[in-house]
Amino acid sequence: MTTIFDAPEDFATTALAGFAAIYQRNVRLVKGGVVRSTKVPKGKVAVVVGGGSGHYPAFAGYVGPGLADAAVAGDVFASPSTAAVARVCRHADQGGGVLLGFGNYAGDVLNFGVAAERLRSEGIDVRILPVTDDVASAPVDSSAKRRGIAGDLVVFKIAGAAAEAGKSLDEVERLARYANDRTFSFGVAFGGCTLPGAAGPLFTVPDGQMALGLGIHGEPGVSEEPIATASDLAKLLTGKLLAERPAGASKAAAVLNGLGSTKYEELFVLWTAVAKELAEACVEVVDPECGEFVTSLDMQGCSLTLLWLNEELEALWRAPADAPVLRKGVIIAAEPATDEIADADGPQSFAPASEASKASGKCIARLIGNIADALKEAEEELGRIDAFAGDGDHGQGMRRGSAAASDAAQTAVAAGAGAASVLAAAGDAWADRAGGTSGAIWGLALRSWSNAFSDEDKASDAATVEGSRLALEGVTRLGRARVGDKTLVDALVPFVETLERESAAGRPLVEAWNAAATAAQEAADATSALTPKLGRARPLAEKSIGHPDAGAVSLALVARVAGAFLKEAAAG
Amino acid sequence: MTTIFDAPEDFATTALAGFAAIYQRNVRLVKGGVVRSTKVPKGKVAVVVGGGSGHYPAFAGYVGPGLADAAVAGDVFASPSTAAVARVCRHADQGGGVLLGFGNYAGDVLNFGVAAERLRSEGIDVRILPVTDDVASAPVDSSAKRRGIAGDLVVFKIAGAAAEAGKSLDEVERLARYANDRTFSFGVAFGGCTLPGAAGPLFTVPDGQMALGLGIHGEPGVSEEPIATASDLAKLLTGKLLAERPAGASKAAAVLNGLGSTKYEELFVLWTAVAKELAEACVEVVDPECGEFVTSLDMQGCSLTLLWLNEELEALWRAPADAPVLRKGVIIAAEPATDEIADADGPQSFAPASEASKASGKCIARLIGNIADALKEAEEELGRIDAFAGDGDHGQGMRRGSAAASDAAQTAVAAGAGAASVLAAAGDAWADRAGGTSGAIWGLALRSWSNAFSDEDKASDAATVEGSRLALEGVTRLGRARVGDKTLVDALVPFVETLERESAAGRPLVEAWNAAATAAQEAADATSALTPKLGRARPLAEKSIGHPDAGAVSLALVARVAGAFLKEAAAG
Repeated sequence: MTTIFDAPEDFATTALAGFAAIYQRNVRLVKGGVVRSTKVPKGKVAVVVGGGSGHYPAFAGYVGPGLADAAVAGDVFASPSTAAVARVCRHADQGGGVLLGFGNYAGDVLNFGVAAERLRSEGIDVRILPVTDDVASAPVDSSAKRRGIAGDLVVFKIAGAAAEAGKSLDEVERLARYANDRTFSFGVAFGGCTLPGAAGPLFTVPDGQMALGLGIHGEPGVSEEPIATASDLAKLLTGKLLAERPAGASKAAAVLNGLGSTKYEELFVLWTAVAKELAEACVEVVDPECGEFVTSLDMQGCSLTLLWLNEELEALWRAPADAPVLRKGVIIAAEPATDEIADADGPQSFAPASEASKASGKCIARLIGNIADALKEAEEELGRIDAFAGDGDHGQGMRRGSAAASDAAQTAVAAGAGAASVLAAAGDAWADRAGGTSGAIWGLALRSWSNAFSDEDKASDAATVEGSRLALEGVTRLGRARVGDKTLVDALVPFVETLERESAAGRPLVEAWNAAATAAQEAADATSALTPKLGRARPLAEKSIGHPDAGAVSLALVARVAGAFLKEAAAG
Repeated sequence: MTTIFDAPEDFATTALAGFAAIYQRNVRLVKGGVVRSTKVPKGKVAVVVGGGSGHYPAFAGYVGPGLADAAVAGDVFASPSTAAVARVCRHADQGGGVLLGFGNYAGDVLNFGVAAERLRSEGIDVRILPVTDDVASAPVDSSAKRRGIAGDLVVFKIAGAAAEAGKSLDEVERLARYANDRTFSFGVAFGGCTLPGAAGPLFTVPDGQMALGLGIHGEPGVSEEPIATASDLAKLLTGKLLAERPAGASKAAAVLNGLGSTKYEELFVLWTAVAKELAEACVEVVDPECGEFVTSLDMQGCSLTLLWLNEELEALWRAPADAPVLRKGVIIAAEPATDEIADADGPQSFAPASEASKASGKCIARLIGNIADALKEAEEELGRIDAFAGDGDHGQGMRRGSAAASDAAQTAVAAGAGAASVLAAAGDAWADRAGGTSGAIWGLALRSWSNAFSDEDKASDAATVEGSRLALEGVTRLGRARVGDKTLVDALVPFVETLERESAAGRPLVEAWNAAATAAQEAADATSALTPKLGRARPLAEKSIGHPDAGAVSLALVARVAGAFLKEAAAG
């Protein structure tokens, strides 16, 4: 949906004015288009490109040294008028003639063609170059009928680089035509696009389907298929293009183009799969580009373009360019880094420990093993509880974190670590493997707790109680949650307070602990009545009323497991 | 909708890998993030930024000279783990210490904070900088509680430029904190975002509404309002930010940020309105940026950020940067153009004409005036017919084009132009003002027709008939349409053929013309049975069956009006 505009009929001109205001360093606004705002050498061939609006960065975003000299912009999805094309060309002409590039559409062929005739009658040498890269739009034996889509970018880049290098109009035209002959694109759409002010989209793609070979103005696709995985989509796109691979071609420039609403991150995901397919087909990819280059308003989808390079084209493709959306070359000179990327997981050796502390460390590792077992068993139930207020991955995170913590604790024990080091290693592993906020909180809690222990002494009861306070402080200092926010803090505070109070009253650790565990459980149950406060979306917050907080529930579970362990240890 | 992925749980890591493959010149992939792929001077302060994925280009897109040294990437919308943050910092550290920048969210505060503590214990000096620019997320008197949104970019830019300039960690931290204190953002959303693999969006915004002050992970907005025009939206955004303008501040860096699915062209439209508001508030805007900088998957919406500059901040904001998404500075040295932009509408003077040809020119101008009157009257009807197969603007285009042609013809007559020049001027004006394909075709037809006339001779009957053939040739040569394609050519071909046949048979022009006009009308009516062929969307093509082509209908109308004019002229 196109949402931001004043009068829909002013959309294209206002967008162009805003673009020109932002990119003053690159362009100047003229009636119907933009021209470079930098000096251009007299006699240089002018590369003028254009077409309808709604395809940004095509075409105004291509204007700058190394690429186009000017761009003509029509109304949304409408060819610019003959007069506008002619006018912008007159601005751009430096006496070296004009190469006029546009996508191969009836309206553009007409307006750019007539403008070229008019300019020739005025004594300006103009050559026209309709780009015809879309393999879906006509069979290979009538490739001159093909539409121009994202191939515009690569063909204009070649022309722009040739013109910047001072080549003659004949040469620029020859190279651009040669590049066009070797440029192939294929696209898919997942959803339509909406003209500014229109009540509905120009076309729709059925849910779960993708339209193959769709144009960039709502032209019909060749067929529809169920939406593919990234890997299968990469096979589809590369397959269509490799089918027309010129004999002997082994190097290609590549452009993975988003049509408007497809995320850059989706394109990057797709690129990993495309790169794999191209590597398997023994295609060496040169300077690939991945982003929005020829869009279709807010259309969802993408296209892949390959330009098969020879030495001449490769040099032009690699040449510097300084346009708003294609900037190739160096701004700040910096040598490539050549050092190997070493492992950077931090210190892994442990301080020497006393036998007493090692024994405590072993005990801690066993306890964490028990906790991991219990959390593995509770994974599904914790996930179910979490799903009321979050994305339901709490059980998975707790299982992964505690398993990693248990492994790390055992590794530390085997390496002769003391109590403090074993617990710290467990905490770090938990945070690293569980991910998310709860993983970080558990990691922080265990690491903070470990500060009450040392590697010289046995982990005393007093240190254990002190550790619980350190854990709470760590969690609240960095985690920011307070009692009543419906987080694990709601259970941790009564746990620590009860443990301290009962210990101070002289009860043995195992009793004090189990009283604290009971308090934690009661508090966890009571979180059902609360709504979460910390940066959760409103619908989720509302859904969670009547359900306990998964973090508080898992804290109570861990407290209970530890209580049972202490009881057993005291008994044994 | 996030559509392209293989396994949803691998989305973030695969996207990061694809990004690193595309931007090898800038970054190297490490576990959990990316670091610069260029050499960094020993002792330089490392600026490490990060947060969850799904916000591209935040944060990996910021890595490069003049901006960040490294970025840590968590899972989609999830904080990276403490271990990942620490690991990436160890890679980036050059002995000058680390400034660790992130948006102010509980999970990030926790993980980056704990990582900083861990790194300090290893002897690396680390300062943390939670960005707090979102004015909607907390009142001004508790601004430390505010979330970080697109202000990330500007605060990190200041830190990166300061670090690149060789400043100490103390200085880099001071400047970054100062920038954060002076950075304010406000955003609106028109639609929600969908996690990869999720069945539905994380949240929705009611149709026709916009959510004010929404976060970038689906956090609740402050309120909802009906979607505003670009002008009103600009007032809203600037109003929220100007309310917190620091005393004496008059210069600001500005970032107009798209959240994912909002088009760049929409942002440019909005920027023209924002620039107006800021100018009215006497804010001098320095190097504004307009594009996607901090996104929220496929969320629709935008935010405006202002950083209030002093001299020190302005120099840092303007400093070169060479990251994938923020490239400031020159690649190809080029002087700004200083010449005035002159009018470039082409030759306006007319060749000297004979009195006989001037008289014909006057006649042609009168005829075109009649045509313009008739098309003005028919505007609504032609629009109605066009709406079956197009966007319904045919009547408007014909009215505008013919009115402009009539004005231009009269101007040419007043300037003493002959028949050929009057008709050519009329054609050019029609093409320029009508826009679109039909405007170009009419302009081309009239200009081609004018080639049968001269400025020396009277426009003879024979020349008039010859002109009709030239017009047809011009239209079919550049316009590509053939009979049966459901265009104006379907009416123009029988018109020209009848006119030639009847003239050749010795009938006077007025009779031949009116026979031709009848043939054109019959052919226009018969287009009801055809479906269009030329690049129109399938649903539109199907809708048009049973309705005549608007272009053919208007051609027949013009032929009829001209016939009546000839009859009257012959009678008078």
